[in-house]
Amino acid sequence: MPGRGLFVAFEGGEGTGKSTQARLLFDWLGLHEVPARLTSEPGGTPPGARIRALLLDPATGALAPRAEALLYAADRAHHVATVVLPALDAGEVVLTDRYVDSSLAYQGAGRALELEEVRRLSSWATGGLVPDLTVLLDLPPGAGLARALGRAAADRLESESIDFHERVRATFRALAGAEPHRYLVLDAGGPAEEIAAAVRERVAALLPGRVA
Amino acid sequence: MPGRGLFVAFEGGEGTGKSTQARLLFDWLGLHEVPARLTSEPGGTPPGARIRALLLDPATGALAPRAEALLYAADRAHHVATVVLPALDAGEVVLTDRYVDSSLAYQGAGRALELEEVRRLSSWATGGLVPDLTVLLDLPPGAGLARALGRAAADRLESESIDFHERVRATFRALAGAEPHRYLVLDAGGPAEEIAAAVRERVAALLPGRVA
Repeated sequence: MPGRGLFVAFEGGEGTGKSTQARLLFDWLGLHEVPARLTSEPGGTPPGARIRALLLDPATGALAPRAEALLYAADRAHHVATVVLPALDAGEVVLTDRYVDSSLAYQGAGRALELEEVRRLSSWATGGLVPDLTVLLDLPPGAGLARALGRAAADRLESESIDFHERVRATFRALAGAEPHRYLVLDAGGPAEEIAAAVRERVAALLPGRVA
Repeated sequence: MPGRGLFVAFEGGEGTGKSTQARLLFDWLGLHEVPARLTSEPGGTPPGARIRALLLDPATGALAPRAEALLYAADRAHHVATVVLPALDAGEVVLTDRYVDSSLAYQGAGRALELEEVRRLSSWATGGLVPDLTVLLDLPPGAGLARALGRAAADRLESESIDFHERVRATFRALAGAEPHRYLVLDAGGPAEEIAAAVRERVAALLPGRVA
């Protein structure tokens, strides 16, 4: 691919299938020999993995809200600088499981901080890098949490109240509603293969002539 | 003490005696039965200790400059919210070994970031909390590094070039020069007891009638 690659973020609540869908898209790009990078936040780099462990470890106890937001931003800054941007510069398609919207939804809307403060922080951390496409996997919190909890013990985020997760979902949807051209909002309650097909269709349109 | 306590920061390069002086002042306040808290950055809280380990561990490798700045800010936000402010609210004298000026000097001046960006970040992290007094222990880098290296193996900061440490020192001095009423600049090359006496004199003036 000549020039800059394509940056796709998968966003949504717990148990909405973000990593499954990112992986399906990654495999499909591989079949078409499109160079792609599958990554995630938080924890997509070695220092990021240590930041993630700190953020999700129940032993950490309550983090001051600004400290928590700054840790997510630090993880993101290192991820963008050392993984995302170099891959985009090499012309790859970068698929990330969570990005800025997750911070806005979880910290800005759900916690003690203003959305605008978290947005400013993320924007500084990323140097203003915005995805070409954000796939929002939307699901009522009850359904998503049941899936997530079936998979593993509750971590700090998942043990928050259902009400918190309702606010998270509402924020994700509001972000998508504000920039509809840059979002693909899908009902995450449907069959994974149908969702994957919808994602492929949208990504194919962004890679004309390369995934015929 | 009725109302708010007193916030004193000790700043300066490597090996200038910050922790020694903070400890001497703490002990002296104890003799006068003034409630005091001795703390430090980075790493003055349990999550902060993990952030500090990440920042100083040579195995971390090169951190993206913004990621590094965000990690220091996260440590500081948690430190201020959970240690400094509660102690000040309880009327204590809080002595911190390093604070905002260290970030400005090491990251802003020494590295790839603008001083103004780092200042904005620290200001958000602390909610704008500024020390009542900052004691700057000033020493040419060569002398300070020799002391610090005699004490332990070089960590990531100390293995930077002498030129870097010259810029750090110049930034500390410029910060003090911009707000002379809020700084006490002392030649860190003198005897520790003389320096301690100068610090005590200034602090006594800020605690009228309490350390006669």
